[in-house]
Amino acid sequence: MADYYSVKWIDGAVSMIEQRLLPHEVQYNSYHTYHEVAEAIRVMVVRGAPAIGAAAAYGMVLATNALTTSDVGEALQALKQAGEHLKAARPTAVNLFWAVDRVNAAAVNSGAASVEALRAVVKAEADLIWQEDAEMCFRIAENAMAVTPDPVVFVHHCNTGALATVDYGTALGVIRRAHEVGKQVFAYVDETRPRLQGSRLTAWELRELGVPHAVIVDGASGFVMKNKGVNMVVFGCDRIAANGDVANKIGTYNLALAAKAHGIPAYSVGPTTTVDLNTANGDLIEIEERPADEITHPDGKRQVTPDGVAVYNPAFDVTPHELITGIITEEGIAYPPYTESLAEMVRRAEERRQKRG
Amino acid sequence: MADYYSVKWIDGAVSMIEQRLLPHEVQYNSYHTYHEVAEAIRVMVVRGAPAIGAAAAYGMVLATNALTTSDVGEALQALKQAGEHLKAARPTAVNLFWAVDRVNAAAVNSGAASVEALRAVVKAEADLIWQEDAEMCFRIAENAMAVTPDPVVFVHHCNTGALATVDYGTALGVIRRAHEVGKQVFAYVDETRPRLQGSRLTAWELRELGVPHAVIVDGASGFVMKNKGVNMVVFGCDRIAANGDVANKIGTYNLALAAKAHGIPAYSVGPTTTVDLNTANGDLIEIEERPADEITHPDGKRQVTPDGVAVYNPAFDVTPHELITGIITEEGIAYPPYTESLAEMVRRAEERRQKRG
Repeated sequence: MADYYSVKWIDGAVSMIEQRLLPHEVQYNSYHTYHEVAEAIRVMVVRGAPAIGAAAAYGMVLATNALTTSDVGEALQALKQAGEHLKAARPTAVNLFWAVDRVNAAAVNSGAASVEALRAVVKAEADLIWQEDAEMCFRIAENAMAVTPDPVVFVHHCNTGALATVDYGTALGVIRRAHEVGKQVFAYVDETRPRLQGSRLTAWELRELGVPHAVIVDGASGFVMKNKGVNMVVFGCDRIAANGDVANKIGTYNLALAAKAHGIPAYSVGPTTTVDLNTANGDLIEIEERPADEITHPDGKRQVTPDGVAVYNPAFDVTPHELITGIITEEGIAYPPYTESLAEMVRRAEERRQKRG
Repeated sequence: MADYYSVKWIDGAVSMIEQRLLPHEVQYNSYHTYHEVAEAIRVMVVRGAPAIGAAAAYGMVLATNALTTSDVGEALQALKQAGEHLKAARPTAVNLFWAVDRVNAAAVNSGAASVEALRAVVKAEADLIWQEDAEMCFRIAENAMAVTPDPVVFVHHCNTGALATVDYGTALGVIRRAHEVGKQVFAYVDETRPRLQGSRLTAWELRELGVPHAVIVDGASGFVMKNKGVNMVVFGCDRIAANGDVANKIGTYNLALAAKAHGIPAYSVGPTTTVDLNTANGDLIEIEERPADEITHPDGKRQVTPDGVAVYNPAFDVTPHELITGIITEEGIAYPPYTESLAEMVRRAEERRQKRG
């Protein structure tokens, strides 16, 4: 692991980096009850689907540990309620629901004969969720090495690093891994308006990891590609349609268009869990609109626009598969035609889960 | 004119809108000495090449009006010194030098027999500079109407409006004129990082002019083109090479790439004075790097990036002529091959000046 982490179980409590203070202050908080964890999720101390999932799983551990009953049925009931409370913290976070349900299912299916045994089951499942995410991200990064040149000059979008996951991250994990294995790396980090995850978080991670980098405005990516020897573009994925269209943070599409124009390989990087085989193509993905103040208040504090100005703030865009060189997953790199290759990646992931479980 | 203006001669003084207070406060300052005007130029009360030129020209009028000598030779000498002082306010502003030199030449060549006559000559020349810019921008906007659809949905970059010129502006003048002549107009205004001229100034101008609009982040332009019926992209030009390559505010290139990908006409809009026939192509244009704090402090006040993070902040980029549908000037619209059409526009402008002079 890097010297920093998003979420970790330490001494009987959940330790999380306070992401709202980053990058100016680095502070780790210890959470000792599931109520505290739920609140931390709600106010976004922790962000990023995998990190939220792991936090919630450990929240379930705290709930189990706090039980005073010795009745297993009562304990399971209490655990279910704790799960509902955790889910309510961010009702749209799919990974939060998935992690809570997975811990609950493990508890129910364990047939544990005592609350003590139940505690062990829940802790083991939470650890597994945490560890699987760390391993998955590492495998993604490792798979990427085969297509990462040396020297490599990246352009990277948004924040996709260890702060958003349990470790390594996705697209940023590729950059980190390339640096770790000794490739000569330079990373252009676009700031990623409106929320500036690039200049606030990715720049912080790269500084911590000692990776040479420079922050640019989003609009400078084409200029940098033309003039600065960029040879690989990486970004994450919020959701991948069956045909390889990728919904991701707004600005990804423009970045991919610029990469295409310069003949630079552009990779979407993420786990197979973001592949949605039931969505045929990107046009079917609904795009969330976010509040205007993300644009009117660029640093979240002070309004720069005049009063009464209209704003349009889509949170995501869809990059059509024609612009994507490959999709790097923990099961390998999917290439066109994506309808086949993505289905194969999902099949492999399913196989791996079955082997394990 | 719109209800606002950048610079205007009123009651024996130079009136300028205090652009540093925009868009939150609208305040017009009166400047009564050329020293005050120079200071206003230096601290950027006024910005935009044509507006600075007009301000400096009227600064020369103030200098002439303040003369106490009755000796014409002494007066011309004093005027020359005032001009040097004005030029020193922004030593890289070509238009500032041009306006001062033009006023000085008019004074010297007038053969004025008295200081009183000299005052009249200088005032007339300054008025002419002001008026020519207003007319030139209006002609640009008028020329654009032939290629502006109805209804029209624009994407516009940076600030190119009346605030940066004497009136109308260039690319923003096209939007304004389309609205004035009754076309059904909607304008997507990209915020234009790092200095946010789009969200601060262009949005303010459109609100003042009553043009329906929405501010977007720069990275959203491709998404908006794909989904919102955009049918015309307009941006200004800082410098145009002989082959039609356009140096302009960073982000223009990405915008033009997105327009090309969607088959949407993209026009660079500006006066023939920005055409540099001595520069063969855009690769020969040197790009200024601006200070890091424009990126690290998004609203100019508060740092959002971590300490010690590296930044790369090119102020301009070059959009190759292949991406540009046409270049709209006061002499008409130049189309490919630009080497011929731009030379023709420059020739027409020269002819017009000779007729006039």
